[in-house]
Amino acid sequence: MRETGIVIVGGGFGGLAAAKALDRAGVPYLLVDARNHHLFQPLLYQVATGYLEAPAIAHPLRPLLGRGRFLLARVEGVDLKGRRLLLEGGEALPYTHLILATGSRPHDLGVPGVGRHAFFLKGLEDAQRIRQRLLLALEGAARGERPLRLLVVGGGPTGVELAGALAEFLRYALRRDFPEVGGAEVLLLEAGERLLPSFRPALSAYAKRALEGMGVRVVLGAQVVGVEEGGARLREGAFLPADLVLWAVGVRGNPLPGLPTDPRGRVPTDPFLRLPGHPEVYAVGDVNGLGLPGLAPVALQQGRLAAENLLRALRGQEPIPFRYRDRGQLAVIGRNKAVAEIGGLAFTGFPAWALWAFVHIRELIGFRNRLLVLLNWGYTYLFREPGVRVLLGEGLPRPGLS
Amino acid sequence: MRETGIVIVGGGFGGLAAAKALDRAGVPYLLVDARNHHLFQPLLYQVATGYLEAPAIAHPLRPLLGRGRFLLARVEGVDLKGRRLLLEGGEALPYTHLILATGSRPHDLGVPGVGRHAFFLKGLEDAQRIRQRLLLALEGAARGERPLRLLVVGGGPTGVELAGALAEFLRYALRRDFPEVGGAEVLLLEAGERLLPSFRPALSAYAKRALEGMGVRVVLGAQVVGVEEGGARLREGAFLPADLVLWAVGVRGNPLPGLPTDPRGRVPTDPFLRLPGHPEVYAVGDVNGLGLPGLAPVALQQGRLAAENLLRALRGQEPIPFRYRDRGQLAVIGRNKAVAEIGGLAFTGFPAWALWAFVHIRELIGFRNRLLVLLNWGYTYLFREPGVRVLLGEGLPRPGLS
Repeated sequence: MRETGIVIVGGGFGGLAAAKALDRAGVPYLLVDARNHHLFQPLLYQVATGYLEAPAIAHPLRPLLGRGRFLLARVEGVDLKGRRLLLEGGEALPYTHLILATGSRPHDLGVPGVGRHAFFLKGLEDAQRIRQRLLLALEGAARGERPLRLLVVGGGPTGVELAGALAEFLRYALRRDFPEVGGAEVLLLEAGERLLPSFRPALSAYAKRALEGMGVRVVLGAQVVGVEEGGARLREGAFLPADLVLWAVGVRGNPLPGLPTDPRGRVPTDPFLRLPGHPEVYAVGDVNGLGLPGLAPVALQQGRLAAENLLRALRGQEPIPFRYRDRGQLAVIGRNKAVAEIGGLAFTGFPAWALWAFVHIRELIGFRNRLLVLLNWGYTYLFREPGVRVLLGEGLPRPGLS
Repeated sequence: MRETGIVIVGGGFGGLAAAKALDRAGVPYLLVDARNHHLFQPLLYQVATGYLEAPAIAHPLRPLLGRGRFLLARVEGVDLKGRRLLLEGGEALPYTHLILATGSRPHDLGVPGVGRHAFFLKGLEDAQRIRQRLLLALEGAARGERPLRLLVVGGGPTGVELAGALAEFLRYALRRDFPEVGGAEVLLLEAGERLLPSFRPALSAYAKRALEGMGVRVVLGAQVVGVEEGGARLREGAFLPADLVLWAVGVRGNPLPGLPTDPRGRVPTDPFLRLPGHPEVYAVGDVNGLGLPGLAPVALQQGRLAAENLLRALRGQEPIPFRYRDRGQLAVIGRNKAVAEIGGLAFTGFPAWALWAFVHIRELIGFRNRLLVLLNWGYTYLFREPGVRVLLGEGLPRPGLS
């Protein structure tokens, strides 16, 4: 049995922001995660497409915690009444205050076959699995001297970024490494009427044009109703054969068993980020049920406020309600191509791309990772070469949810 | 069925040297490997100990082949009479000339339990598995607030380099990340009377002193007769408990089924590197049975000569016998600590370390990898921080032969 106290579950953007706020106040805590690292998810698609090594966008959690201790463990549930976490292996971990920052997980939206036959982008292993599968698909196409087709389902930022990066990867790979492959096609399927629906329509149109200019076939209004071995089926009945199906739609909250949730798996809270009836429990980020978009800035701001409200509670002060300060949004499409909405401004092309690169380098944690990402980007920018094209292991990675 | 011709099996130092010699002569060939990359094995221990990312010491084979084609496939045997390779999946690949460069694999030397309970260092996955296990062992020791003990078996260059790198890794990790761990010990066990037996005795003595100065416990004359869950047993009966046993002794040739071999798994050849009775088949590098040490320069020189003798045979010229040009040997122990024998000179300390670093950067393949390794080393040199401490996946890596 460990000493009780403040426990944070999850070392993503929300959990880490809460930890740092507690550090600043000099208050000890315990951070629990099943992984030993913080992952910079916004660049995960670059690991999947061979532009970055996995460790460049991950940072070990231990050296990031000032007053906090770290426990590598999988939490299997919460006993809200008994105020304890249930750990894998049977151990119980008591808490006096709890900050839940368990994030989200990919969701199949009820479409059959997705869990078995599609690939997702959530953790580092998912990204590495996609890269492995992509390289193996190229080897297979080279051996058969046939063309290659990749399907990206979902036209939000993740789908757009993946499709663009895949197109650039394939253009390089076919020219340099795989002349035997008889062409390669990237299809981006979006069920709605435009890409990037959270952006203004002019930017959606730009994204579509830019992707098409890079050779991506964008299909709007295309609803996938099933994924099978070797392709995906559309609502109209057409079957699109593909070497690889990437599922970039649908996430749901990743709550702990024992918590109340809404239909999307998120934990309802009051405006102070506290669980109703349990003011000692806070939920932040993607698992919070206030209905904000699943973005890093939301998680950061909520993590910080949860820690602050917790400290206020310890001091007998009133809590502060959450108000999201929206600083805008960015999505990258490819080399010198991106869209940005900042304040009232919208812009595209090189300025948006440069802003995107600057913001992402700045937000990365750790001098070493910033240096690595900068070096990799500089290299790719100069030589147009996705640098990480090494197959690890020999087996075929399995699709599906990790 | 593919067009016949020259086939090289294996993209290590020997196979790649042969490929490049054929490229220079403008002669087409096919290179077959079950991996898509050339691996710079001399730095593999730095991947295992968190100093380098795996992709930094591997280079995709395809862009390295000029006139050659590449086939990702596992070769399961040779039909010498029928002059064809048997591929996994049943396909047969005919050849007119064959260069075997299939390298070596770890060997348990008949010691029970090694295959099940010890870790080896051969491929990238082995190195990543050791790093994962090392990080998990530290987390386990932190959770139990107990000390950690690592065992390295074998006092050759690999064992010495591993023990030194582990000691430096642990010194950093315990100070910065794992204050809860109650100490860490690295034991280096060598069955013979001195470390680095291929070097002159004064350098062996230096290596022992240097390692001991870094906190490594060096035990000479210690023969491991069994590895069990949780430790290793010595001939005298003592059981040494350990969180991790690394097996750095014993490799054997990795021949293809269907080839004659000596007791150490190597393919006997004439001085021209040709299989007796099959002058169309060459064997180079670790799998060659001429009895030379399993070093990169041997493989490089043999690969080059095999290609040259093959070209001479095509032109009706006499083959040239192999003569090893020994340019010396190097082994690194730690920061500013190494041993070197070059020509008649022997030296240690910073000059040997700087030479080691220079030679290894120079021999690495690819501008990008050189840059990455330089950057990583510069970073580690400045901050003494092994930069790659990210656990991938969540499961416990299994020991044993991959």
